[in-house]
Amino acid sequence: MLSKSQISLLKSLQHKKFRKEHGLFLVEGYKSVVEFVNTAYQVDTIYHTPAIAPKMLNLSRKINFQEISLTDLEKISSLKTPQEVIGLVKMPVWPALNYNTLKNRFSLVLDGVQDPGNMGTIIRTADWFGITNIICSEDTVDVYNPKVVQATMGSLARVNVHYTDLATTLPKINLPVYGAMLDGENMYATNFGSEGLLVMGNEGNGLRPKIQALISKKVTIPRVGHAESLNVAIATAILCSEIKRNSLK
Amino acid sequence: MLSKSQISLLKSLQHKKFRKEHGLFLVEGYKSVVEFVNTAYQVDTIYHTPAIAPKMLNLSRKINFQEISLTDLEKISSLKTPQEVIGLVKMPVWPALNYNTLKNRFSLVLDGVQDPGNMGTIIRTADWFGITNIICSEDTVDVYNPKVVQATMGSLARVNVHYTDLATTLPKINLPVYGAMLDGENMYATNFGSEGLLVMGNEGNGLRPKIQALISKKVTIPRVGHAESLNVAIATAILCSEIKRNSLK
Repeated sequence: MLSKSQISLLKSLQHKKFRKEHGLFLVEGYKSVVEFVNTAYQVDTIYHTPAIAPKMLNLSRKINFQEISLTDLEKISSLKTPQEVIGLVKMPVWPALNYNTLKNRFSLVLDGVQDPGNMGTIIRTADWFGITNIICSEDTVDVYNPKVVQATMGSLARVNVHYTDLATTLPKINLPVYGAMLDGENMYATNFGSEGLLVMGNEGNGLRPKIQALISKKVTIPRVGHAESLNVAIATAILCSEIKRNSLK
Repeated sequence: MLSKSQISLLKSLQHKKFRKEHGLFLVEGYKSVVEFVNTAYQVDTIYHTPAIAPKMLNLSRKINFQEISLTDLEKISSLKTPQEVIGLVKMPVWPALNYNTLKNRFSLVLDGVQDPGNMGTIIRTADWFGITNIICSEDTVDVYNPKVVQATMGSLARVNVHYTDLATTLPKINLPVYGAMLDGENMYATNFGSEGLLVMGNEGNGLRPKIQALISKKVTIPRVGHAESLNVAIATAILCSEIKRNSLK
């Protein structure tokens, strides 16, 4: 059983302020928790219902396990339909971004993406395409937001997400900077080469002018129909697919 | 001001049963409502706050306009942050699907997609790529679900969504049937030609076996990284882009 103060602490982690204060975040669902167990992330405690206890035996013994009631689990879950396992994970302290690790590959840059579902889906898509670094503006939604963690479906355990001031960071990375913009070059005719950054903007406003100024090539997904725009996670995925296309044919 | 019975009717439209019973659904937000005004859809009434009244003057005079308080608007809205305009729209009675209209183009087929956000995003993406027909299994999420309507960002006004028994319908459509499956052919090496159906499965379970049996070519988005799968709206978008690629280069 969880004490009142434990429940209060765990519930507080739905808010960025308290995640930062405690250096902890929650991962919900057995499959997602398992993804974190064998990575550099430190899983502090796994809370689970009695029903799922047998499945816990396969996991590392270095973790604390705590059996709790479904009622307690529902109290700490941020999901409408809580799952039977919640992991309490330590927020890693990222070393400063080493620009050399970005060479000979593509990385994503997010300029103010706000929607947690979009952010999580972008991380999942990046993981699918083998993109391991995402560089975000300071005002991009927090990656440890429970809705982001959920939407990554475990991929967060494998993708490094850095927050930084893009305007000062991008010029220091000596790589081609592709920006998704409505007035860009047809992406199907673009030669993306083998390394670079792909910059995606905010859902409503796109790229900020000072970030637009740092783009070396604007690219566009040509439109046939009438939708005014594409969802940012969708546009990111289509561009990632096009960038990786030549190496995957 | 809205009467209690009006509020009760409008609120009931959040549920499929009552949408069907009344033949009505709601569209929220000025931009989305405008998309419906000049289409075959019949907009019955537009509810709006006094603040946005001047913007209503540009819209067709065939519609009833009703100025309501923000409090009333919040009561009938299904959004966390209600917008200032809600349109009450008649559900169209679709004629039987004419298979001839599917020739010389691509259409989407959804086998049990459940998440309203995914469904709405798929419709928006289809509209971007000029795909105007989506054929859904009977158990696919209802397209007039408020979360679906919201996620389409107005594109629902331009994309025809049909519900039918896929197992009996697909064999009657004499077109190549491409199915997104993990063990399919590399999509980058696939020649999609200029017409066909692209079938996408349920979020957790993919395509049902009886639908798999109707696929003429399985296709896959090659994976480089480690994510177990892609979100269904993401996979649909990547495949639509690849299908349209040759005509857009």
